[in-house]
Amino acid sequence: MLTLSDIERAAARIKPHLRETPLLTSSKIDDAFGHRFFFKVEALQKAGAFKARGALNTLLWAQENKCLTPTVLAVSSGNHAQAVAWAAKLMGVKARIFMTKTVSKIKMAATQAYGAEIILTESRQAAEAAVREEAKAGLLFVPPYDHDQVICGQGTACLEATRQTTKNFDAVFAPIGGGGLLSGTFIAAKALGIAHVFGVEPLPANDAAQSFRKGSIVALDTLPDTICDGVQTLSMSERTFSYVKQCNGIIEASDESVCKATQWLTHLLKVTIEPTSSLAFVGAASWAKAQTSPQSMLVILSGGNMDFAKRKLVYQRDWIESVCLADLAKSF
Amino acid sequence: MLTLSDIERAAARIKPHLRETPLLTSSKIDDAFGHRFFFKVEALQKAGAFKARGALNTLLWAQENKCLTPTVLAVSSGNHAQAVAWAAKLMGVKARIFMTKTVSKIKMAATQAYGAEIILTESRQAAEAAVREEAKAGLLFVPPYDHDQVICGQGTACLEATRQTTKNFDAVFAPIGGGGLLSGTFIAAKALGIAHVFGVEPLPANDAAQSFRKGSIVALDTLPDTICDGVQTLSMSERTFSYVKQCNGIIEASDESVCKATQWLTHLLKVTIEPTSSLAFVGAASWAKAQTSPQSMLVILSGGNMDFAKRKLVYQRDWIESVCLADLAKSF
Repeated sequence: MLTLSDIERAAARIKPHLRETPLLTSSKIDDAFGHRFFFKVEALQKAGAFKARGALNTLLWAQENKCLTPTVLAVSSGNHAQAVAWAAKLMGVKARIFMTKTVSKIKMAATQAYGAEIILTESRQAAEAAVREEAKAGLLFVPPYDHDQVICGQGTACLEATRQTTKNFDAVFAPIGGGGLLSGTFIAAKALGIAHVFGVEPLPANDAAQSFRKGSIVALDTLPDTICDGVQTLSMSERTFSYVKQCNGIIEASDESVCKATQWLTHLLKVTIEPTSSLAFVGAASWAKAQTSPQSMLVILSGGNMDFAKRKLVYQRDWIESVCLADLAKSF
Repeated sequence: MLTLSDIERAAARIKPHLRETPLLTSSKIDDAFGHRFFFKVEALQKAGAFKARGALNTLLWAQENKCLTPTVLAVSSGNHAQAVAWAAKLMGVKARIFMTKTVSKIKMAATQAYGAEIILTESRQAAEAAVREEAKAGLLFVPPYDHDQVICGQGTACLEATRQTTKNFDAVFAPIGGGGLLSGTFIAAKALGIAHVFGVEPLPANDAAQSFRKGSIVALDTLPDTICDGVQTLSMSERTFSYVKQCNGIIEASDESVCKATQWLTHLLKVTIEPTSSLAFVGAASWAKAQTSPQSMLVILSGGNMDFAKRKLVYQRDWIESVCLADLAKSF
């Protein structure tokens, strides 16, 4: 099992190249909710998401261990693709990213802007088969979550947050898709004395909540329909589940709650966050409601990459005028 | 005339209470434009705009000079109102803010959330008359720009930016409404060796550009129709014009350019900026186009307070898919 020292090594490795993302607070939110929220804004991380941490840590670790190849591989249409492309550019190696041909133009352009080669495939399965072939030929494959160094990289966000304030956190909340971020967060949090660690996922994509309740991995059959496209993964891996099952719980959030939270956080924190980020806030606010004393919570806002269509969906209804901040938690 | 030491005194005064706002860069923007842009993100300042600097500096200065009153006054429906309300709360005094009754619910709520008393009047003229009466009775009035300590406070954003990087700036760009931010920026920039200082204003509200060309203050008759509601001021004051006329120029930007810039900056920098902020970027990009060598530019993103209706206006058309980043500067 990984420990805090693995995460500390990752943090030292990536520190020179990554941003120390801000830890923001909002007195308006704290006053309205009666709890203290600390927002770790990974939307302001390089390439727009926490994913840059895991990708860069893996490439730097590979270099240290003489297994970095002149081209590295990834399968992703989202933040992991941009992260690997960004990290590869920084390291002076090529990135070959496999995406399904349904990927949006803007997501493809964002990845290409870092100099990555994009290979479009008919399906996710085809992309994964292709990357397996090339990995067999010796090219380094950077998986989105099922890798110790990816997990350690993602865990640095929580570690960094605890170093940015003298306050203690009672609980930490992170979105869960494949479980890389939550696993890293769990390892760091437990060693740093944070009593509660929760994953938060969309109700329509609740494989992690089902797995947590059942005690073994449950996989979804088809790509779930949720506004949180960062966590549409079909299932965790054995590696990530071994950490996730030790967390205090998986909280499920509706897409409507996520839209409300995205609008309010964008409005008050002035950061661009994608809906997936807001999961953590909805989870934190929901958990806090049931507590009998004021809680201090670390909320990991995972990323800020969002296209026009997604923004339009988030802003379909005005949740700022129609739900006042005092009623927001009740409405989740 | 004010000097850099006045701004340094303001900076020392407000530092314990305000955020050091991030100075962000984007390799994608720099690569596409062939210039270096440094974005000073005042949207992440307390109360969501640079206005907190001037308001707090004025109240702290008043306290030092024994002229702080138990209630302070302001006339504003925008960022200045929130800034004075926020600063007054911090100082433990009351804020009484006069607004015209057409103010949006959300802007009023944002100001009330800091504990300010709101007085709604029929017109801006009525608001100003009322505040003059109360000021005569001895209450401290915090004007939005026509005050030395407001100007010094606003100038701290530029000063702070120069301390956040070892790079030199060839030019600095700030939006101009009443001229408080630009005046403070000019004083700081010139003393700090920044060769060029530009104000940027919306084409439909170009009283500053007209004034600059004419060499004397030109006032607009009616509230101009522009998406940049932060700079709808009818005219500068003699005080601010005495600095503004020494700048290198006032650049005019169309509302369409502002929408494009707002979408692209939100997309790439992941910060919520109001359209007024984007003026500075449009101005910088326009100026840089005409330069024969790569320039290093400081762009002050003034604020991030925006209601649902304004956001809808900004996102009426998709400028991310329809104008690629490489063509963005040309399209301004």
